[in-house]
Amino acid sequence: MTFNPETTAAWKKLGELAESPVVLNAPGLLGEARFTDMSTVTAGLKLVYATQKVDAQVISTLQELADELRLVERFKQMRAGLVINRIEGWESENRQVLHTATRDIFSSKPRHQEATGQALVELEKLKTFLNELDQGSVRGSTGKPFSSMINIGIGGSDLGPRSIYEALKAYRQPDRSVHFIANVDPDDAAAVLTQLDLEETLVSVVSKSGTTLETLTNETLVRSAFVERGLDPNLHCVAVTGKGSPMDNSPSYFRSFHMFDYIGGRFSSTSMVGALMLGYALGMDNLMAFLGGANKMDDGAESSDITANIPLMLALIGVWNHNLLGYPTVAVLPYCQALHRFPAHLQQCDMESNGKSVRIDGSVVTSKTGPIVWGEPGTNGQHAFYQLLHQGTEIVPIEFIGFTESQYGHDLQVSGTTSQQKLVANMLAQCLALAQGQDHENPNKRFAGDRPSSLIIGKTLDPRTMGALLALYEAKIVYQGFTWNINSFDQEGVQLGKVLAERFLSLMKGAGFDDSSMESEMLKVLEK
Amino acid sequence: MTFNPETTAAWKKLGELAESPVVLNAPGLLGEARFTDMSTVTAGLKLVYATQKVDAQVISTLQELADELRLVERFKQMRAGLVINRIEGWESENRQVLHTATRDIFSSKPRHQEATGQALVELEKLKTFLNELDQGSVRGSTGKPFSSMINIGIGGSDLGPRSIYEALKAYRQPDRSVHFIANVDPDDAAAVLTQLDLEETLVSVVSKSGTTLETLTNETLVRSAFVERGLDPNLHCVAVTGKGSPMDNSPSYFRSFHMFDYIGGRFSSTSMVGALMLGYALGMDNLMAFLGGANKMDDGAESSDITANIPLMLALIGVWNHNLLGYPTVAVLPYCQALHRFPAHLQQCDMESNGKSVRIDGSVVTSKTGPIVWGEPGTNGQHAFYQLLHQGTEIVPIEFIGFTESQYGHDLQVSGTTSQQKLVANMLAQCLALAQGQDHENPNKRFAGDRPSSLIIGKTLDPRTMGALLALYEAKIVYQGFTWNINSFDQEGVQLGKVLAERFLSLMKGAGFDDSSMESEMLKVLEK
Repeated sequence: MTFNPETTAAWKKLGELAESPVVLNAPGLLGEARFTDMSTVTAGLKLVYATQKVDAQVISTLQELADELRLVERFKQMRAGLVINRIEGWESENRQVLHTATRDIFSSKPRHQEATGQALVELEKLKTFLNELDQGSVRGSTGKPFSSMINIGIGGSDLGPRSIYEALKAYRQPDRSVHFIANVDPDDAAAVLTQLDLEETLVSVVSKSGTTLETLTNETLVRSAFVERGLDPNLHCVAVTGKGSPMDNSPSYFRSFHMFDYIGGRFSSTSMVGALMLGYALGMDNLMAFLGGANKMDDGAESSDITANIPLMLALIGVWNHNLLGYPTVAVLPYCQALHRFPAHLQQCDMESNGKSVRIDGSVVTSKTGPIVWGEPGTNGQHAFYQLLHQGTEIVPIEFIGFTESQYGHDLQVSGTTSQQKLVANMLAQCLALAQGQDHENPNKRFAGDRPSSLIIGKTLDPRTMGALLALYEAKIVYQGFTWNINSFDQEGVQLGKVLAERFLSLMKGAGFDDSSMESEMLKVLEK
Repeated sequence: MTFNPETTAAWKKLGELAESPVVLNAPGLLGEARFTDMSTVTAGLKLVYATQKVDAQVISTLQELADELRLVERFKQMRAGLVINRIEGWESENRQVLHTATRDIFSSKPRHQEATGQALVELEKLKTFLNELDQGSVRGSTGKPFSSMINIGIGGSDLGPRSIYEALKAYRQPDRSVHFIANVDPDDAAAVLTQLDLEETLVSVVSKSGTTLETLTNETLVRSAFVERGLDPNLHCVAVTGKGSPMDNSPSYFRSFHMFDYIGGRFSSTSMVGALMLGYALGMDNLMAFLGGANKMDDGAESSDITANIPLMLALIGVWNHNLLGYPTVAVLPYCQALHRFPAHLQQCDMESNGKSVRIDGSVVTSKTGPIVWGEPGTNGQHAFYQLLHQGTEIVPIEFIGFTESQYGHDLQVSGTTSQQKLVANMLAQCLALAQGQDHENPNKRFAGDRPSSLIIGKTLDPRTMGALLALYEAKIVYQGFTWNINSFDQEGVQLGKVLAERFLSLMKGAGFDDSSMESEMLKVLEK
């Protein structure tokens, strides 16, 4: 296998095709056949890509690219435990990538027996713990049941769980809410602590390494608030951490759950990082449905036919848009308020995975890797940044996400349609408006059109569908990383900032400004 | 004055300079003199641009561009009431742009007497209303004081107020909270309504036109919830709307506040759109401090010397990065959790204003207009998308925002420094790491560096500073629009989606699928 995707025959062919891609508002292009042909379903989610700048030839060449780069085979190898978190010939993490094992729990023959076995042990511990909470045998230090949980974590220990909690809180158990503290900004913790009755508060401290600066600092802040109220924090805190980390088996936590080094933070939502919080909030049945949806999508992502594999199709259309057509960003726009933080999670998962410059053989990439990922919910965005999407000079490929039914079912007909119908109508209208555009005598009322988007549609955003949606994007990101032949599973790019932050902190501790380093120069300017 | 900025002498000179901009990690470039020279203060906020890819010659040429395009003069004309929301020779809104008048209330000689007079009338009405709430002469329909407010609005009637409320909620009065409903998604309203005791809930319905689909739909949903609980919604609802709109002087609202056609939604945070909500939550004194900070920045934005005018400097460095160096996006990264929704507001304000393709004379632009604006708070982002910022193939210019003191003052020393110090240290470290980069034997541990950013620093995020920060960005956006010679104040790009949404809704109402329109084809595919 070549390490440079640009040298494959399929990539070269795509380069030629990209010189004259289909124009979405060319007469007769959009029509019934196209919408029917260019849509497919995996694990209950439908992908419609009729409004992408692709035709049958592009799709078949993307299939060739997938085949040449052995993408599906490598996905299966990942699930089976091949060590793919590595850079050949250089010091690297050298780990397996087994987030999919945490949900491969429904068959008697999981892809990776040991990792799934470890996941099942943790799930069993969780089940016991949740039963104890339900039956009241585990309570706060003054005997009150835990009516709220604080999740202390950052990055992968925050964005995934937070966005999924927000997505599914319509399904939460009565009298259980979850709050999140992530930022080292002390006001983040202060704002959460002012809202809660600590006697009834369970604290989950989440850090794989057990050494994350922000998390330990916030834990200290939160523990001191318990002490101030005369409560013993050790009777309120549980840990989610790597086996053997400094947080593991510490008397500071009355219960510990484990995560493993073969799961990166940004892919950890279906491990105990997400599962403890979701189990607490939604109950075990909803958690299992969530894991089931994710597993179903993982299985669907193994189809070697891209027209039957929506993660792979979404990934390769993304490569087409980013590398061949040259669009620098991709917007994820959910028409679903519950998904309001999901784009932020994807921004992390995608950009931390694929914002790389070195291939898995250590060579420097010669084409672009991951795009900038951003987005906010529609219809809100229609009243905000959509002006630029329609008439600006930057072209933004879009992934719309929508559902035909609401979560709460509290809806009303106004002017003959429900709110849910209005929501879906607006999503479809935006997709079509971007593709078709509109001519007009007044130049300010012209819409160039030919702006690409996809639709991802489900029935309702329940736990199972959320699991499928999460796994869809995880697999998309993995597939794009495979295509660029980069290591999507390390994050060396975050190290330099950590080192420099330590230097600033040393100065702030009182080393003074006599030093002539860049850091002291910057501090002088700021303090003047 | 030319309508095409590219034909100015300064732009041409910038084009030449952009062929070999300074390299931030060139030996000896970053140093004390640069940090001192390239920083300036306006209205209490310091801008440091030493880590942008500019030198003295670029800055003086940006000054020439400002002079050639008469940017400051045009800003003053805007504040004085010139009709600048227009496209010459074509049907357009033909309005003044007077958001600055809503805070030009502290001098005896406001720039635009009439608009400021109208603002003062509304502020007087608000003061009376807030007194009545404080004294208990205005209460809910069952005699209880209003302990929470729902703000129903979307776009400019939501994102600005919401982000400012989040930014300043540390200063809110005891027993007063604000909740926001924006999305036509019925689950948005449902999630808010489940949290509140409607007997104690005040509802503010915000729509300039009085006809916004989402807002009226959500108002209907909320009113029906009051009726279900046996409460009269008319005794709980107030309106913020344009004079003479369908919502104005309606018996459905027990009090009305006015906004005016010379203020666009995205610039309306200091009008009654933001002021009613902020006055309710924070009290009149904090509201006045907020308006005072904004006014001070507006005045500072009138300096013709760009090195003493941080909105203009930020705007022109943005043009340099976007048009001359070719970076398609800009990230706003506040090291302040309270500003977690501020990037979303700026995304709206900037992209809706400057995502345009036509100049103010109706000619089609030949250079890029507004960039894609995105961002999340640090330090959270460091554990998320910063990997791409440091080692990805997309270069993202950054605007960091930070404060030397926290809001709540609840902080602890951990490992010798406070959380607030850690927060600031991390921001400075990121700025420096992006500029300097790092060489390394291991290609995966190399950082190219030379990635540009600015620092915006204030003392603490209080109401006055928030007002200044808001006005800084409003003026930046206006200045960039002036530079590109586009109309930053209309939003024709949102119309086509509205028209097509109506067509989908007609079909959904039961017109059936016998029709052969594109809309019915799409619906067929989705419903299959």
